[in-house]
Amino acid sequence: MFESTFADAGRRDWAGDEGDGVDAGSDAVTRIATVGCGNYARSVSIPAMARGDYAAPTVVVSGDAEKRARLVDEFGVTAIDYDEYEAGAATDEYDAVYVATPNRLHLPHVETAADHGKHAICEKPLEATVERAERLVAACDDAGVRLMTAYRMQTDPVIRRLREFVAGGGIGDLQRAVGDFTFPVLGGDAGPDQWRLDGRLAGGGALYDVGVYPLNTARFLAGDDPVAVSATTRSPDPAFDEVDQHVDVRVEFGGGADADSADSDGWIGNVSASFSGHPNTSLELLGSDGRIAVRSAFQPGADREVTVETAEGTVKLAGVGADETVEEFDYFAHAVATGGDIEPDGADGLIDMRTLAAAQASARTGERIKL
Amino acid sequence: MFESTFADAGRRDWAGDEGDGVDAGSDAVTRIATVGCGNYARSVSIPAMARGDYAAPTVVVSGDAEKRARLVDEFGVTAIDYDEYEAGAATDEYDAVYVATPNRLHLPHVETAADHGKHAICEKPLEATVERAERLVAACDDAGVRLMTAYRMQTDPVIRRLREFVAGGGIGDLQRAVGDFTFPVLGGDAGPDQWRLDGRLAGGGALYDVGVYPLNTARFLAGDDPVAVSATTRSPDPAFDEVDQHVDVRVEFGGGADADSADSDGWIGNVSASFSGHPNTSLELLGSDGRIAVRSAFQPGADREVTVETAEGTVKLAGVGADETVEEFDYFAHAVATGGDIEPDGADGLIDMRTLAAAQASARTGERIKL
Repeated sequence: MFESTFADAGRRDWAGDEGDGVDAGSDAVTRIATVGCGNYARSVSIPAMARGDYAAPTVVVSGDAEKRARLVDEFGVTAIDYDEYEAGAATDEYDAVYVATPNRLHLPHVETAADHGKHAICEKPLEATVERAERLVAACDDAGVRLMTAYRMQTDPVIRRLREFVAGGGIGDLQRAVGDFTFPVLGGDAGPDQWRLDGRLAGGGALYDVGVYPLNTARFLAGDDPVAVSATTRSPDPAFDEVDQHVDVRVEFGGGADADSADSDGWIGNVSASFSGHPNTSLELLGSDGRIAVRSAFQPGADREVTVETAEGTVKLAGVGADETVEEFDYFAHAVATGGDIEPDGADGLIDMRTLAAAQASARTGERIKL
Repeated sequence: MFESTFADAGRRDWAGDEGDGVDAGSDAVTRIATVGCGNYARSVSIPAMARGDYAAPTVVVSGDAEKRARLVDEFGVTAIDYDEYEAGAATDEYDAVYVATPNRLHLPHVETAADHGKHAICEKPLEATVERAERLVAACDDAGVRLMTAYRMQTDPVIRRLREFVAGGGIGDLQRAVGDFTFPVLGGDAGPDQWRLDGRLAGGGALYDVGVYPLNTARFLAGDDPVAVSATTRSPDPAFDEVDQHVDVRVEFGGGADADSADSDGWIGNVSASFSGHPNTSLELLGSDGRIAVRSAFQPGADREVTVETAEGTVKLAGVGADETVEEFDYFAHAVATGGDIEPDGADGLIDMRTLAAAQASARTGERIKL
């Protein structure tokens, strides 16, 4: 089963070329306006749209004239500022928006997109609070536009193949997942003057910004949602006095860990994240009949190093992937064009928002919080 | 630093041949009576004593005449039963006892050893309850005999070298440790009729039997003790209705996770263990400046696969170890003969007992428990 799963590992199961019921064959291009042009949008997301088959970057929205000029030069896009975006400038040049602003600004920008009748792909986590995220999702529902939460791991071909392997019983019943994302946010040129360290703008720290990766990816691989969380945070460095520098969350899935429960579907996710320390991204799934370990699990565009152990032996995979960010925008663009499924939708994003908020509450109170 | 740490990786720093203050040069042999001759004692511990430089198996205590006969044949030992052991038979043939019975029988057998004026090396965890473990330690103290908790990982040369590397700042400040020991206790010929599944005899399940490995080894590597725990257990399989089948423990160290604490020495250990599932033993340390991962971390006599990542690059080590069980009995025997330090002493064992008991209480109540 392992070999058949990983044959043609990079295949786009969502593109409808395998008779899976998605309306196939559309090569219509979805034109995307990028709202918020920070470093990640400029260096990763917009280039990924430009390399895509179904997506194209046509508009950028930025408050910085120098950035606008640079992006016009580099990608031949139309560049507008936030007032112009609000006012409906260039709406005939884009079909959807990609919102890559600080978390707390997602809501107004997605609302504007919905007002303009544009679909939205919104960076994770959906917003800075659950209540705002719910309003964001409602705005898209009310306007009848599509919404995707930008969980790029869900479109990473290696992660999609691993999901198939897990769903097919490749490691038996899932017993435990362990994931970490340590992202030294003050590394390189990045100083403390950034929105990720602003509690109001970000909603949370390492938990919201990078902890959501192991959380959402574990959920995606298992096809399961949290039932309770218990968390602890630490912020010894004063630079992180508004947000969590380190976080450890125990996430109960399935039957969970109620003392009186003997649900054999229960399993535990141990999710951790840090805004300082030696860079690390890893995810491990321990099952009744096997183990999957992924190194460089959440690094953008990285070759995932995958080890799969079962009773039959150990297989190591490398070099089987594709650029998950190109996949992400093509997945969204194709779904918009064809009406295909968007799995990481608003509801998916809200589950994580509620889990993150519960983890914050647990860290504050020391209590286990049921979802 | 890494290379100098691992040069001559198998060296016995405790044997006093490096001018570290231990009384060197003793080659006196400590003769050991093994009390309880289960599979592990027969197939691992007694052969390890026989291969040692300082230890020798001279007596075995078993209630099973067939086992006694077999061990006499195989190791040339004197074999006695429990009544004879109690009555002081063959006390002139051993200097120390190795207690390898079910956990709840450690206390009476160590008390007997102390009554006979014999030193003791006692399997982990020290007993089935904290109160009984405290009495066990007191019995040795009162009799003036040495006591070692049989934490074989503390004498594993690879683990000792890693401790030196960590203590020397090799990965900076420790931020997080993640360890798992999944031991399918019903695998192979082993059915449910075994003491490990008896709540009263064992004291606990996966947590007590194998979870203590990542816990104690993380403590040993960091040189630090727990300040609080939060745990959850699951036992979906009815075979485990008296003990935990799966356990996940978050262990707070140093400054811990008090909401008002910003102690930069704080770090988190995520310890898990299972009595069913795909076999797994692993330990990972994440630091401010590096990462250490050990696979086959707690497997008896296994070659530890070690990966060390720092800003300078990644080094993988294999084949640098030695048999940690031979080391364990030689370490104990040498310490008894020379009066040298025993680091995994009764006090060390009690810290784990209190942590395990607190984890049980936390799993029962859902509360975080301070130590």
